[in-house]
Amino acid sequence: METLQGGGALKHEREAPMRIRPIEPRDRERILEIVTATGNFTPVEIATAMEVVDEALADPAHPRGDYRAFVLEDERSHVAGYECHGPTPLTEGTYDLYWIAVDPACQGSGFGRALLAFAEQDVRATGGRLLLIETSSQESYGDTIRFYEKSGYPLAARIKEFYRQGDDKLIFAKRLTGDTALVPE
Amino acid sequence: METLQGGGALKHEREAPMRIRPIEPRDRERILEIVTATGNFTPVEIATAMEVVDEALADPAHPRGDYRAFVLEDERSHVAGYECHGPTPLTEGTYDLYWIAVDPACQGSGFGRALLAFAEQDVRATGGRLLLIETSSQESYGDTIRFYEKSGYPLAARIKEFYRQGDDKLIFAKRLTGDTALVPE
Repeated sequence: METLQGGGALKHEREAPMRIRPIEPRDRERILEIVTATGNFTPVEIATAMEVVDEALADPAHPRGDYRAFVLEDERSHVAGYECHGPTPLTEGTYDLYWIAVDPACQGSGFGRALLAFAEQDVRATGGRLLLIETSSQESYGDTIRFYEKSGYPLAARIKEFYRQGDDKLIFAKRLTGDTALVPE
Repeated sequence: METLQGGGALKHEREAPMRIRPIEPRDRERILEIVTATGNFTPVEIATAMEVVDEALADPAHPRGDYRAFVLEDERSHVAGYECHGPTPLTEGTYDLYWIAVDPACQGSGFGRALLAFAEQDVRATGGRLLLIETSSQESYGDTIRFYEKSGYPLAARIKEFYRQGDDKLIFAKRLTGDTALVPE
């Protein structure tokens, strides 16, 4: 299942029309724009995000690729966000959500939740049972952290001082079994 | 500081003569032999270990390379073990110990402790402040886990069911500051 029509499978209170589809080369520039616009990432982090995008673009059709990236188009067919996930090496059924970002101008439209629900659905479709999300404990990530918690991702682990002094790594985890593929709430 | 003479900087109770030096292409076959002989790794894990070795071999002289690998030679100049570590992407001063293995025939000689102490020394020399080691909670890793704990690595985090059902990821961490570069004990 490679696309998801807004208003169909997902049940959100406030949901704008949308469509989620696999990434294409023409999306690259727009994704760079979105990642930069969020204001959350350093230049090195942005470069890493784009490396992951390029990995996904190198083999976009592979259903079991290491990096699977999808973009969300709004009602004007304009790309408003993207997510990238893939199987965690050396595990059986564990996946990482490597990146998820929505244009700040579109936030509050339920796009982030739709992208996350789509990633979960895709992970389950390829036999995944556990989805992990790593993020920083920095205050600027407060909204992001609350978003994950509200989406059913409790904090699974914290590695103190991981990124730098005073900046921990937080690992959120959701078990994907039975009927938990849709965002609860 | 690229080599370490046994009986010199390290203080171990039972320490056989040894020398630690950067990896060379001729070590590849012997490392594969050692990793296989430990009996701890699956074929996929062995392949991953060798990928990391190849990454280290691709740029062995780079003092700030992503993968730095060193071998330990015993008194007969025979390679008895190796370790590989490198800076963790997107962090300031955090390093991962990616792999450490000693030929089972040589275990009990203090070689594992010497390799770990060498890695710590090398990390500190390149400005590192935190060294992480990830391993499995499986029973077959019991000796490994006790080795890390005895070497001053408390358990920093556990991600349940990470590798597979019933097999957690354990993350051990040691802060490398001041005079803690040598294995305490």
